[in-house]
Amino acid sequence: MKHANDWLDDVKWQADGLVPAIAQDARTGRVLTLAWMNREALLQTMQTKEAHYWSRSRRALWRKGEQSGHVQRVREIRLDCDNDAILVVVEQEGGIACHTGRETCFYQRLTDGRWAAVEPVRKTPEAIYGIR
Amino acid sequence: MKHANDWLDDVKWQADGLVPAIAQDARTGRVLTLAWMNREALLQTMQTKEAHYWSRSRRALWRKGEQSGHVQRVREIRLDCDNDAILVVVEQEGGIACHTGRETCFYQRLTDGRWAAVEPVRKTPEAIYGIR
Repeated sequence: MKHANDWLDDVKWQADGLVPAIAQDARTGRVLTLAWMNREALLQTMQTKEAHYWSRSRRALWRKGEQSGHVQRVREIRLDCDNDAILVVVEQEGGIACHTGRETCFYQRLTDGRWAAVEPVRKTPEAIYGIR
Repeated sequence: MKHANDWLDDVKWQADGLVPAIAQDARTGRVLTLAWMNREALLQTMQTKEAHYWSRSRRALWRKGEQSGHVQRVREIRLDCDNDAILVVVEQEGGIACHTGRETCFYQRLTDGRWAAVEPVRKTPEAIYGIR
């Protein structure tokens, strides 16, 4: 008999209880972030239709945008062939996913042997987080 | 003084020496795979312009497509804001990234509380790998 949260059991969680989760912008197709989910984060993401992650640095559940307002509204949740990576297709509030104020966290491009920042800052962190 | 491979030192490798690496199709924008790179895989990816990964199951360096022919020709290598995730933008040979013969490994979509396969098999694994 299948139970309500069998889909969570289908995920092959790492030994630390996490899986990597990619967020992709539904409109632009840009890859926005690579973050981590535990079971609770994935459940909350499904139930609220807003992306939740597990912050490895703060060791806490984290609703994306809870401080910045840059929430990610979830259109689709996908799982890969090995059941060990998640893809969430999202509408990115504000068009900014990165805490640096850029559209995407992947703003450093390998260029002539160094990582060059190639995406503009759309809003300064000071403006986003109200730091004075 | 900057040395030739300082860009590899800029990456925040996990304790196990790996970082997650997302492959995205340059033409379609589809997210194709989430795999893992060690230092050698990232160096080979840069030098050969073909995606290399570290297979955690086989514990070996792996040139994507070495068996299937579905190589990933690298257009861009990007690093995220925390320096702990890689994005490679690739031209996917054959339009198939997944070992199941689908365009993308992320072919299971959460639908009504279960993971449903929503992408067609473009070529059977038997045809790809020549298994008889």
